Amino acid sequence: MDAGLIGIGQMGSGIAMNLLLKGHRLTIYNRTPERTESFRGLGAQIASSVADACRSGVVLTMLSDDTALESVVYGENGLLASLPSSGLHISLSTISVALSDRLTADHAKAGQQFVAAPVFGRPEAAASGSLLVVAAGPSDAMERAKPLFSAMGPRLAVFGERPSLANVVKLSGNFLLSSVLESLAEAMAFARKQGIDTQALYELLTATLFSAPVYKMYGGLIVTGKYEPAGFATKLGLKDVRLVLQAAEAAAVPMPVASAVHDRLLTAVARGNAEKDWSVLGRIADEAAGLPPIR
Amino acid sequence: MDAGLIGIGQMGSGIAMNLLLKGHRLTIYNRTPERTESFRGLGAQIASSVADACRSGVVLTMLSDDTALESVVYGENGLLASLPSSGLHISLSTISVALSDRLTADHAKAGQQFVAAPVFGRPEAAASGSLLVVAAGPSDAMERAKPLFSAMGPRLAVFGERPSLANVVKLSGNFLLSSVLESLAEAMAFARKQGIDTQALYELLTATLFSAPVYKMYGGLIVTGKYEPAGFATKLGLKDVRLVLQAAEAAAVPMPVASAVHDRLLTAVARGNAEKDWSVLGRIADEAAGLPPIR
Amino acid sequence: MDAGLIGIGQMGSGIAMNLLLKGHRLTIYNRTPERTESFRGLGAQIASSVADACRSGVVLTMLSDDTALESVVYGENGLLASLPSSGLHISLSTISVALSDRLTADHAKAGQQFVAAPVFGRPEAAASGSLLVVAAGPSDAMERAKPLFSAMGPRLAVFGERPSLANVVKLSGNFLLSSVLESLAEAMAFARKQGIDTQALYELLTATLFSAPVYKMYGGLIVTGKYEPAGFATKLGLKDVRLVLQAAEAAAVPMPVASAVHDRLLTAVARGNAEKDWSVLGRIADEAAGLPPIR
Amino acid sequence: MDAGLIGIGQMGSGIAMNLLLKGHRLTIYNRTPERTESFRGLGAQIASSVADACRSGVVLTMLSDDTALESVVYGENGLLASLPSSGLHISLSTISVALSDRLTADHAKAGQQFVAAPVFGRPEAAASGSLLVVAAGPSDAMERAKPLFSAMGPRLAVFGERPSLANVVKLSGNFLLSSVLESLAEAMAFARKQGIDTQALYELLTATLFSAPVYKMYGGLIVTGKYEPAGFATKLGLKDVRLVLQAAEAAAVPMPVASAVHDRLLTAVARGNAEKDWSVLGRIADEAAGLPPIR
Repeated sequence: MDAGLIGIGQMGSGIAMNLLLKGHRLTIYNRTPERTESFRGLGAQIASSVADACRSGVVLTMLSDDTALESVVYGENGLLASLPSSGLHISLSTISVALSDRLTADHAKAGQQFVAAPVFGRPEAAASGSLLVVAAGPSDAMERAKPLFSAMGPRLAVFGERPSLANVVKLSGNFLLSSVLESLAEAMAFARKQGIDTQALYELLTATLFSAPVYKMYGGLIVTGKYEPAGFATKLGLKDVRLVLQAAEAAAVPMPVASAVHDRLLTAVARGNAEKDWSVLGRIADEAAGLPPIR
Repeated sequence: MDAGLIGIGQMGSGIAMNLLLKGHRLTIYNRTPERTESFRGLGAQIASSVADACRSGVVLTMLSDDTALESVVYGENGLLASLPSSGLHISLSTISVALSDRLTADHAKAGQQFVAAPVFGRPEAAASGSLLVVAAGPSDAMERAKPLFSAMGPRLAVFGERPSLANVVKLSGNFLLSSVLESLAEAMAFARKQGIDTQALYELLTATLFSAPVYKMYGGLIVTGKYEPAGFATKLGLKDVRLVLQAAEAAAVPMPVASAVHDRLLTAVARGNAEKDWSVLGRIADEAAGLPPIR
Repeated sequence: MDAGLIGIGQMGSGIAMNLLLKGHRLTIYNRTPERTESFRGLGAQIASSVADACRSGVVLTMLSDDTALESVVYGENGLLASLPSSGLHISLSTISVALSDRLTADHAKAGQQFVAAPVFGRPEAAASGSLLVVAAGPSDAMERAKPLFSAMGPRLAVFGERPSLANVVKLSGNFLLSSVLESLAEAMAFARKQGIDTQALYELLTATLFSAPVYKMYGGLIVTGKYEPAGFATKLGLKDVRLVLQAAEAAAVPMPVASAVHDRLLTAVARGNAEKDWSVLGRIADEAAGLPPIR
Repeated sequence: MDAGLIGIGQMGSGIAMNLLLKGHRLTIYNRTPERTESFRGLGAQIASSVADACRSGVVLTMLSDDTALESVVYGENGLLASLPSSGLHISLSTISVALSDRLTADHAKAGQQFVAAPVFGRPEAAASGSLLVVAAGPSDAMERAKPLFSAMGPRLAVFGERPSLANVVKLSGNFLLSSVLESLAEAMAFARKQGIDTQALYELLTATLFSAPVYKMYGGLIVTGKYEPAGFATKLGLKDVRLVLQAAEAAAVPMPVASAVHDRLLTAVARGNAEKDWSVLGRIADEAAGLPPIR
């Protein structure tokens, strides 16, 4: 189908590539136009403005945070002003529950449709169409978005009519990921300082009780101390846990483990690890325990 | 082989049954003798004292905590005094690193062997011989223990010559379990208060990123609010996290998530849930968020 | 001197009364006009709009939070648009460091002066001119504000030319207050549950090591369990600690005690205590310990 | 009066000096005898054994921790075996609630009296007789101890007949001290990183809201970064907070701020600051925030 896509970063690139390969006709836009050039060869139209990308009446956004999305949506030539009446905005970004609710209201006022559809998966999964899409929104809007969702990944999880519910689910998942990371970091520092072969411990744990992919991937990074290049940067992890805590405060839900993870991610950033993979929590745990870096 | 087994609680019963079925000749002892009677039919010898259970020169202990193990080992007619020289004590209990080190020293002084071999798995796994055995100790002692270990489970993980290393590994694993529980409890309270269908969230998470058995089992208990009967009692979970924090303090390893989990388990006990399953952390998270009990 | 004052809440009322009694000519404005009526008798001019209150070229604002201040400052007829060039805005509210920085920039762009001057003290101190004023801003603006500051309290603490530094100081102080509250709450629950006469403990502590007013006042409230009427509402305390944590995150300073206090304040709000005095942390500590309410 | 005093460390020396100067006839004992020699000139008898120091029937103990006190009390020639029937043991040490309860029981069995009387104050206060004594025990034993208590300080606070209540009070006070330290450390790191003159902030806070001695002393150390020589070593501070958390767990009282302080003290020890003053928490907060050491 015809659609715009705004935001051609790591994730957006993968999504664009996959959608184009599957025959969708995309008009793509990125604030810094260099990133879009290579997509001409794949058949993409290159939009010169946000408004341009809204023309087909369906537009996906995949931006890094609330601020980036707000700067695209609001303002004179923003998405909100440019999308035709009854147009559809599908927000794929990991954004705050509050912004999602605000977009819901503003699009409704403008006679437009809004669906929140954050995704789980890394850039490779985006490019290969194997993302997990978590979506919420009015059912007619959801129907309209389905051809795009089914191209993006084999599994779609729908959580109701209020778009921000999808953001709540995404934040719940990201919180759980962050808690796995910090827990592994603490467990490994604990074991390492007492003389345990942490590689063997890692293999034991992930072969049995903790056989989920997330333990395997992050446990491996922590045990080997390989925090570069970043699969997911610490500063982004900190942003996600901040969004969790903000939404939790708004809903009055105390989350002490989330607070502890937040403080450790913040320590990581303060000590110069903002751009490293967020599994660098392993190093932060080591430093707090007076251990030297691995290797 | 011939061996004694001291401690016929939930776990000890399962282990006894399994070892007897596999042809080992066990002499079993329990402080309250009623629990041992039913094992006569399976061919067990019933010891009338700790000393009696030590006669074969190899004795397994499976007690609930440090205090229980100490009361069996020390004293005039205790295990230490009764085990013949070059006898072997295999400690299966989840005990402190400090006690494990002390037993290592005391058995060495007495010319005896000591192996720590805590296990992962529930009573059913003990009875069916599918425990995960984590062991550490001198290699000759380990060789001697192997027929018992291979009867107890298909997988043996060995962590070196110092017995307490096995206890460190066990505590690391139990800490990770406890952090999964508390993280799930917080995530579900967070989602539930914002109107998410937590059963759907549970299915989504455990089908993908968090597909490990521990998420499935505990997530299910938390989502349905079924905390009785206890698979593992809150008071025992609190004991385990206390052992983690004690060992972490002795080794100078700060563990903020472990501290947070400890405080929540302690809250659970303080509010009357000591005997409920430790997944009752789900209810504690709900109560802190001002949510009514599930159902 | 001539000045406007916007925000006639509990604190603003006290400040207005005191400034009027000391001969300053105030034009006051409040969103809900009822609160301003009684000040006619004291010689105040009643402004019918924000613009009206800005006419003298010097305007004080005393609002409850960022949102309230933003709604007064921005917009077509807001303070920023209405204040004459080279006019002076003195912000007395406890607001975020981020908003203070934004106001600094926006007033500069408009050719206006901006001083941040948050205050320590309760409504009674405002009315009696005994507030502690913490201020920061360009020195000429500060000079201009001094007659008002010296009327407000005997003590002025100046922290440099960047206005938001005063907000940082205010937030530091409020964090310390909140940590005193939560620490007292934990200490008293700890002592009470073990059978200590907490009134005697309170007297002992505040007579010696902890003789500061803050321990006396809040310790007394916690020991007697008198959380109503609120001197300072829990929801406002939560707001302040949130501002601390936001500024700390922006500056990359992990504050684990602030996080712990935040979680407890949030628990208090979640369990129905938003309007009670924030010393209700005493009850939250009791509830977590399974203790009944005091009395 | 005649009394023994066991433990001539920093605190014990001061107490001995003061009691001797006030005319009490002391027989003093220390494990390493060198420390006692200088007291001959002040009129002390030097005991060559614990038993020797118990002869008068009244003995004070001032040891560093549970282990040290246990090694003096228990065993063949220990205090318990040596003190005559109806003798009185006054324990001045900061020890666990559990040990205090155990001593109560064991002395009762031996027909002896036991009073717990931990003190607040530094070595100088001990030497000048200006300690704050917190005591609990049977009233007749308390009567008997009073001449010693009134020599030790002008103020005696009595908390009932169960000796360990005095230990609970002491631990409550030490927890509050530790929380002041960590809160100040966090507040100063927060302010410092944002460019605040922390000396000015220190003066402001301690002149007004936080005018208690503890803020003045520790705030000064944190602001100047002077952590040596130690007035009170980090490792002792960690021990005290551990005792708090142990007693809190036994009583089922969750204390999240105590947990946070514990983790920071443990970080301090892990990073090589065990012998520095426990106000080194200031440096730990700076390090977590990526700040260089002060000066």
